Amino acid sequence: MTAFEERLASLRKEHEALLDRDNVPAGTNGVYQRYRYPVLTADHAPLTWRYDLHPDSNPYLLERFGIHAVFNSGAILWQGRYLLVARVEAADRKSFFAVAESPNGIDHFRFWDRPVTLPEWGEPATNVYDMRLVAHQDGWVYGIFCVERKDATAPEDLSAAVACAGVVRTKDFLHWERLPDIQAQCQQRNVVLHPEFVGGKYALYTRPQDGFIDTGKGGGIGWALTDTMDGAVIRDERIINERKYHTIKELKNGEGPAPIKTPQGWLHLAHGVRGCASGLRYVLYLYMTALDDPARMIAEPAGFFMAPEGDEFLGDVSNVLFSNGWIAAPDGTVYIYYASSDYRLHVATSTVDRLVDYCLHTTPDGLRTGDTVRRLNELIDRNLQ
Amino acid sequence: MTAFEERLASLRKEHEALLDRDNVPAGTNGVYQRYRYPVLTADHAPLTWRYDLHPDSNPYLLERFGIHAVFNSGAILWQGRYLLVARVEAADRKSFFAVAESPNGIDHFRFWDRPVTLPEWGEPATNVYDMRLVAHQDGWVYGIFCVERKDATAPEDLSAAVACAGVVRTKDFLHWERLPDIQAQCQQRNVVLHPEFVGGKYALYTRPQDGFIDTGKGGGIGWALTDTMDGAVIRDERIINERKYHTIKELKNGEGPAPIKTPQGWLHLAHGVRGCASGLRYVLYLYMTALDDPARMIAEPAGFFMAPEGDEFLGDVSNVLFSNGWIAAPDGTVYIYYASSDYRLHVATSTVDRLVDYCLHTTPDGLRTGDTVRRLNELIDRNLQ
Repeated sequence: MTAFEERLASLRKEHEALLDRDNVPAGTNGVYQRYRYPVLTADHAPLTWRYDLHPDSNPYLLERFGIHAVFNSGAILWQGRYLLVARVEAADRKSFFAVAESPNGIDHFRFWDRPVTLPEWGEPATNVYDMRLVAHQDGWVYGIFCVERKDATAPEDLSAAVACAGVVRTKDFLHWERLPDIQAQCQQRNVVLHPEFVGGKYALYTRPQDGFIDTGKGGGIGWALTDTMDGAVIRDERIINERKYHTIKELKNGEGPAPIKTPQGWLHLAHGVRGCASGLRYVLYLYMTALDDPARMIAEPAGFFMAPEGDEFLGDVSNVLFSNGWIAAPDGTVYIYYASSDYRLHVATSTVDRLVDYCLHTTPDGLRTGDTVRRLNELIDRNLQ
Repeated sequence: MTAFEERLASLRKEHEALLDRDNVPAGTNGVYQRYRYPVLTADHAPLTWRYDLHPDSNPYLLERFGIHAVFNSGAILWQGRYLLVARVEAADRKSFFAVAESPNGIDHFRFWDRPVTLPEWGEPATNVYDMRLVAHQDGWVYGIFCVERKDATAPEDLSAAVACAGVVRTKDFLHWERLPDIQAQCQQRNVVLHPEFVGGKYALYTRPQDGFIDTGKGGGIGWALTDTMDGAVIRDERIINERKYHTIKELKNGEGPAPIKTPQGWLHLAHGVRGCASGLRYVLYLYMTALDDPARMIAEPAGFFMAPEGDEFLGDVSNVLFSNGWIAAPDGTVYIYYASSDYRLHVATSTVDRLVDYCLHTTPDGLRTGDTVRRLNELIDRNLQ
């Protein structure tokens, strides 16, 4: 074997070992089960994406295309297969989407041969990310994602961007139809399509922003109806889940994946953000809304549902958990795909029953320490009886 | 043995074990080879720097002088020895320079007995750091470094500083001649001397700054010529490597060590900075300029060359890789000395041929996600043929 062939054989062996690795349950608090290994990382990207495999044009077998991180992923159970539409970030900082598939939802995820070639709409995007996948009542699978373009009104500020919500739909995850970006009066990220019609209209969870990063005065997860997804417009937005002082969502919050329908109500997964001396801290939380009105809150446990632990703390943007994908399987198992620190993607498992139990029987936030202690004493009283 | 003697013997044994430790190759992407252990850390500092070793004046054998971090280092191959002029930071946050030496460039680095006593010039410096070592065509080895002094025009702002470029030269690394600080119309850090005369003049890579930390509107790595280094002046600066929106150098960039001369052009190592929710993120990138005009860009691969991984993410200033030193040995091996998170110094090895191959055959940044996917598909096409 030549040195080239030897190195290639070794790369292939290492890559297969990673893709074939079984996942292992880690600690659990009863509500959900973490797993030891991430389900997708940059190292999961096919070698055909990273190397020119021809000895004549790449004699040293150097990496030719740096795949740097795989994280925030939409998720769907489709024809019995667990599909993720992952945010893949290249060394050039641009991200794109790619489908990965697993037979069981917790390991053996493999990327399809090619990334998604997303049709453009309007001014070509500088960046796209965080697709929420929704199998809508209308028969289409929609992907709503964030589209970023340079803010043309501030040419000298190289960090000034405009974020809005892009829309695609598909029936096979190979062919994607691009629909017009969602029109809104302010910047929008974290827009999520509700899976059912509401009063005959499409319903959107929104996150109105005054600026690109600041959420401004606007306060939380919004709700808006639109007649069509082919040219959707956000007009009358109202906040259904608010930001609050000294909570885990003091600074920002946003809907995660589309909610799961349960007999007790719609089950929502969201992220909350607060500031601290080392930057922003992103955690995940749950809430529920009414079956007959998905915009009416019926339960919200205090604090976070999941926060970074161990290696999850570290990555390109540290101290971040984020989720835009989960799957409720027919047997009631829920697969929560959460990313840590803009770097890798993990899974945690639970069941619809457990998550609803958590939402309905965890006390809500009393918003001050004295109330927290009072509730803690009530629990201790009960346990010491 | 007394308790003092026992503790001292144990400290010495531990220290020797650290200095004698062989380094071990870690993962490689073909382009460069990381190593498992840092080459210099605070623990490498001699015990004579950290302890008063007299039982009468230090009966508890307490550390008397906290050496906290060893990082951004200039590097040179000198009389067959691999020398680093390291930035050593004491517990008091002040940094200074110290020479460390290794027989092979990848391990067994030892500090010389004493740190560098830098002659002062003008108003004594509050801090000095990040020396770039250059063996210039004129016969001297120059060290250009950053000098920081309190901004006297803003006495109430305790963080207001003025940064400029200090200059020393030496022929033995023991005796250092201080020359006047480089005069410029704005603040300057990351000034690097080109190793050859250009049109009979000294040539400088610069990084014009409007303020102390913000790079302001000024856009990137500059280039300027000066008649002398004994009173150098930066007058007509032009930008040769620009910052750009949504790249790894959106916010700031700066030249690393002086470039390496190769048959295909000057090979440059630089750092790029972007902002994110957990602060600034520093990565390393490469570019090349023309042999006949070191200020003319001829190649720049998309994205980063190296970014933080694993333990490198963490330190006093997290999410930072920085390099101001590399060595091209006569056999073509390149030793890249890079620091992680303002805390410790690592080495990565490559060869001139591989680094040039990387620069010339990695596609440049297309500046938007659609272009990244198009290029990725081209590579996949080639590999799936």
